[in-house]
Amino acid sequence: MQVTMAVAKVPKFGLTESGDSVELVERPRGGVTGILADGQQHGPPAKRLSQLVVAKAMHLVADGVRDGAVARGVHDYLYAVRNGKVTTELVLLSADTRTRTLVVTRNTHVPVLIRRADGSILRLDEPVEPIGMRETLRPVIAEIPLETGLAALACTDGVLSAGRRYGREWPVERLEELLRAADPDDMQALADRVLAEAMALDEGRPADDMSVLVVGVGDAGGDRIRRMSVTMKW
Amino acid sequence: MQVTMAVAKVPKFGLTESGDSVELVERPRGGVTGILADGQQHGPPAKRLSQLVVAKAMHLVADGVRDGAVARGVHDYLYAVRNGKVTTELVLLSADTRTRTLVVTRNTHVPVLIRRADGSILRLDEPVEPIGMRETLRPVIAEIPLETGLAALACTDGVLSAGRRYGREWPVERLEELLRAADPDDMQALADRVLAEAMALDEGRPADDMSVLVVGVGDAGGDRIRRMSVTMKW
Repeated sequence: MQVTMAVAKVPKFGLTESGDSVELVERPRGGVTGILADGQQHGPPAKRLSQLVVAKAMHLVADGVRDGAVARGVHDYLYAVRNGKVTTELVLLSADTRTRTLVVTRNTHVPVLIRRADGSILRLDEPVEPIGMRETLRPVIAEIPLETGLAALACTDGVLSAGRRYGREWPVERLEELLRAADPDDMQALADRVLAEAMALDEGRPADDMSVLVVGVGDAGGDRIRRMSVTMKW
Repeated sequence: MQVTMAVAKVPKFGLTESGDSVELVERPRGGVTGILADGQQHGPPAKRLSQLVVAKAMHLVADGVRDGAVARGVHDYLYAVRNGKVTTELVLLSADTRTRTLVVTRNTHVPVLIRRADGSILRLDEPVEPIGMRETLRPVIAEIPLETGLAALACTDGVLSAGRRYGREWPVERLEELLRAADPDDMQALADRVLAEAMALDEGRPADDMSVLVVGVGDAGGDRIRRMSVTMKW
């Protein structure tokens, strides 16, 4: 089995820095976790906020803390250090090779879409608040068996709301269609495609920070090599 | 300017888990850091050790700590929790977009190779001990201006020693040649190439865990999209 996680992100038009933060981190007991945070508002303050949240989540994941406890812990931390005055949307996608499940942990209004091995689509859209503002808060968690052909798509609000300023709609069905057609061994292509369509809806000038995080389970290829890469511009 | 960091790694032949750990993490003040750790010995104990080291380094980098202090801090931590009884080779490669430098922080006997923008090669091989065993320890640090065409290559001992069991030599000059020829916008190709040659020297059965970490500075491409990906097999 081969798990691939990929990210594509772009800042709001006119800003050099995205207020979204994403990190991919190895799970100490096996597997990989993608952490996606959308800090409220835009620009440097949003970036500092989402970076704070992602860094804390990364600490906890790398220490072997389970995802539900990570989301609760990060919420409590953010509430404490920012006095309950700011919010961040947070999603964790974990391919856990120990439990052999995909664990989806949401504190966001944006749905996470799952394509099961049989091609059916599961829409995880149970309402749940972002972290940071309430005294206590729980994430919504779903667990799906890791099977060849499984894929999942998470994104920030800027992707879901793309085109709105031009009166266009970006139906969740279109995202589901892209997910259904995706090659589980080429997740970067899926992330790029979703981002490209979202940017096109905003006529190439994203009205908000946009980030896409995807994961896919394919057949193990011929080699046993693990690969990672990051590309950033400035 | 576009910075790309890439990793290719494979476990010692016959083991499912590499004792090396690598993570790529965003720097809160701008840029990206690659952390490479080679835990002593092989298999699960080496993996737990290198993972501990990389997780702690990642915590500190994500908190905005400068690289020299990260290496010192991780050393002190490892010395404290493992009572000075284990060692780990540690390298940090940071593309720091705030200082506009590549920062190389070494606690390893393995050289780090730099290709400057003018094509000349710099070999960072000043002797320095791995972390974990001495009461106090410093890393060796080098700082090189980030320019288009700059590239750097770090690897673990398993790459450098490849072929030794077959009486073959893997001259540093060959690594330098691969680095000199590399496309700074396609760092994954360089990492894959170095790993492939090292594995070939061991007749496809790596005698030790092998990891390659590379970074390159290219021209900013047409889009402003940041991309990340991880592929793992099991």
